[in-house]
Amino acid sequence: FLQERMQTVTMIPGDGIGPEISNAVMKIFEAAKAPIQWEERNVTAIQGPGGRWMIPPDCKESMDQSKIGLKGPLKTPIAAGHPSMNLLLRKTFDLYANVRPCVSIEGYKTPYTDVNLVTIRENTEGEYSGIEHLIVEGVVQSIKLITEDASRRIAEYAFEYARNNQRSSVTAVHKANIMRMSDGLFLRKCREVAENYKDIKFTEMYLDTVCLNMVQDPTQFDVLVMPNLYGDILSDLCAGLIGGLGVTPSGNIGANGVAIFESVHGTAPDIAGLDMANPTALILSAVMMLRHMGLHDIGNNIQNACFDTIRDKKVLTKDLGGNSKCSEFTDDICRRIQDM
Amino acid sequence: FLQERMQTVTMIPGDGIGPEISNAVMKIFEAAKAPIQWEERNVTAIQGPGGRWMIPPDCKESMDQSKIGLKGPLKTPIAAGHPSMNLLLRKTFDLYANVRPCVSIEGYKTPYTDVNLVTIRENTEGEYSGIEHLIVEGVVQSIKLITEDASRRIAEYAFEYARNNQRSSVTAVHKANIMRMSDGLFLRKCREVAENYKDIKFTEMYLDTVCLNMVQDPTQFDVLVMPNLYGDILSDLCAGLIGGLGVTPSGNIGANGVAIFESVHGTAPDIAGLDMANPTALILSAVMMLRHMGLHDIGNNIQNACFDTIRDKKVLTKDLGGNSKCSEFTDDICRRIQDM
Ligand SMILES: CC(C)[C@H](C(=O)O)[C@@H](O)C(=O)O
Ligand SMILES: CC(C)[C@H](C(=O)O)[C@@H](O)C(=O)O
Repeated sequence: FLQERMQTVTMIPGDGIGPEISNAVMKIFEAAKAPIQWEERNVTAIQGPGGRWMIPPDCKESMDQSKIGLKGPLKTPIAAGHPSMNLLLRKTFDLYANVRPCVSIEGYKTPYTDVNLVTIRENTEGEYSGIEHLIVEGVVQSIKLITEDASRRIAEYAFEYARNNQRSSVTAVHKANIMRMSDGLFLRKCREVAENYKDIKFTEMYLDTVCLNMVQDPTQFDVLVMPNLYGDILSDLCAGLIGGLGVTPSGNIGANGVAIFESVHGTAPDIAGLDMANPTALILSAVMMLRHMGLHDIGNNIQNACFDTIRDKKVLTKDLGGNSKCSEFTDDICRRIQDM
Repeated sequence: FLQERMQTVTMIPGDGIGPEISNAVMKIFEAAKAPIQWEERNVTAIQGPGGRWMIPPDCKESMDQSKIGLKGPLKTPIAAGHPSMNLLLRKTFDLYANVRPCVSIEGYKTPYTDVNLVTIRENTEGEYSGIEHLIVEGVVQSIKLITEDASRRIAEYAFEYARNNQRSSVTAVHKANIMRMSDGLFLRKCREVAENYKDIKFTEMYLDTVCLNMVQDPTQFDVLVMPNLYGDILSDLCAGLIGGLGVTPSGNIGANGVAIFESVHGTAPDIAGLDMANPTALILSAVMMLRHMGLHDIGNNIQNACFDTIRDKKVLTKDLGGNSKCSEFTDDICRRIQDM
């Protein structure tokens, strides 16, 4: 019976602590009897015809087949001269929406409680266009590109997300007072799309105001939608409110169900291989993935077990305030799942 | 004797609650016997030859003479079709450095204690260039302009500021992993200038990482220097950490001593004229101004009196948690100054 529903997921373990935390997820999925078959692929920068940077063909093929990926951290040395592989993956599969739920974790103390919001970031254009020029010596310009299509698409995604996840409001984040044309276009599309979602409250707010209000009272926010760079900033800020990138999941969503879920923390080379890493961000990203695949019950079981382990405070990795190993933390979660 | 040192300052009361909080400052300056003579000027958008937007000539003349301005909030209706007068003032006098000290205020509770940092924002270029184009229908670009000169100038300002204010480190905030040429140029100039300030520790950090670390532990930061938009965001975020724009001072600094100090909160039209406004941000901006003018003792007296009133909690405006009027809050500060 399980065999029938078995689905393949491309697993990109990544660098540094990537393999350890990927192993943790695979162990937990086994304990949860998730009907997932993993296809492991390494991602390194490859140069194709004409010097164009690309991801390895066997990873591309796997993703083209499976449509779903789970990914650990990838190192992105600026000096290497190639673009961030994280970005290249998003680009290769046109993963236009970056979704990061930030929800306070019971038992993990931060200055904030009851944070429960989602940042939805346009993932394909804006300040990340990569178009830059040297005008004359000492004068450089970078181009921020905003299109009607991408703006409408991300706005629609945000409202659909709100509706499908029982969320009641969407806030468009912008600086249209300064970038009147580009952010103005983005904002106009949000307003237009909002017209079709009368069940969802729509508000607009300047990015600086959002940041200020966010650190004063994050509970006032629900779903936030924004251009690329603003999303980069706000998603990290919000992750900070609930405990950092070590506990924050992330999903990159494209058309036709294609998606890559990833932990967005670093590769932590200093503790790589020492069984000290905290796999929570990748576990919670895998939970997002299960929900995306319609496997809500298994996702909920894993999430509950993970949160129970954290709330219980007995078996925690060092960064979470304990002194247990990654494998012990993982085993505690597995035990809870098996007891369910 | 005082008469001799008397200096003129251009006072721009501004809109909404502007006149009330400006009055508060003038009263307090009188109590403190500050050797300042005010020249009041209104700022509204004026259209000059060729339709160019400008500030009123009598304000320009006053500033050209006095070199120093103190400014309340100005309303900036997007619909009005003219640029923000706040920005136009910065531009008119080439006020290239926006300086915002964010220091925790004793007795005013926020989720953070011991915040003590300064954001220094490049105020003239970057994403605020105002250059935007419609490429084809539905495709817009905004240009972010970074120059060597402006980057070096703001970096030098930041290091000078650190040295003159007994601060030990400067962090350059950037996204040079994404905007390699523009933020790369900014970062390179910071590195070069850092070479000349071996007494100040220099670090670099991605904007997203700064935001994340900031909400987790702001005490790790000291002086931060950054391009225009990042400064807009971070300065508001940091203001949020210590209680918001109502208690955060700001200064815009140009060459040859020219400067305008301003409260950066809104005009609060809903409470304008009701004697309910909190003048703290303008008072503390005026204190920054006094220090800029070399009048440290008077500045310190006013700051101490203001902080004493807040710590004492007996006479507070509504937004600070009390139920006193703006004039009562002001009088309490004046009384403390006179008792010194
Ligand atoms: C890895 C890096 C290029 C990336 C970004 O800037 O978008 C990261 O910060 C993120 O948020 O996923
Ligand atoms: C008034 C507005 C145009 C301005 C800005 O965006 O810079 C404000 O937010 C500020 O920080 O001074």
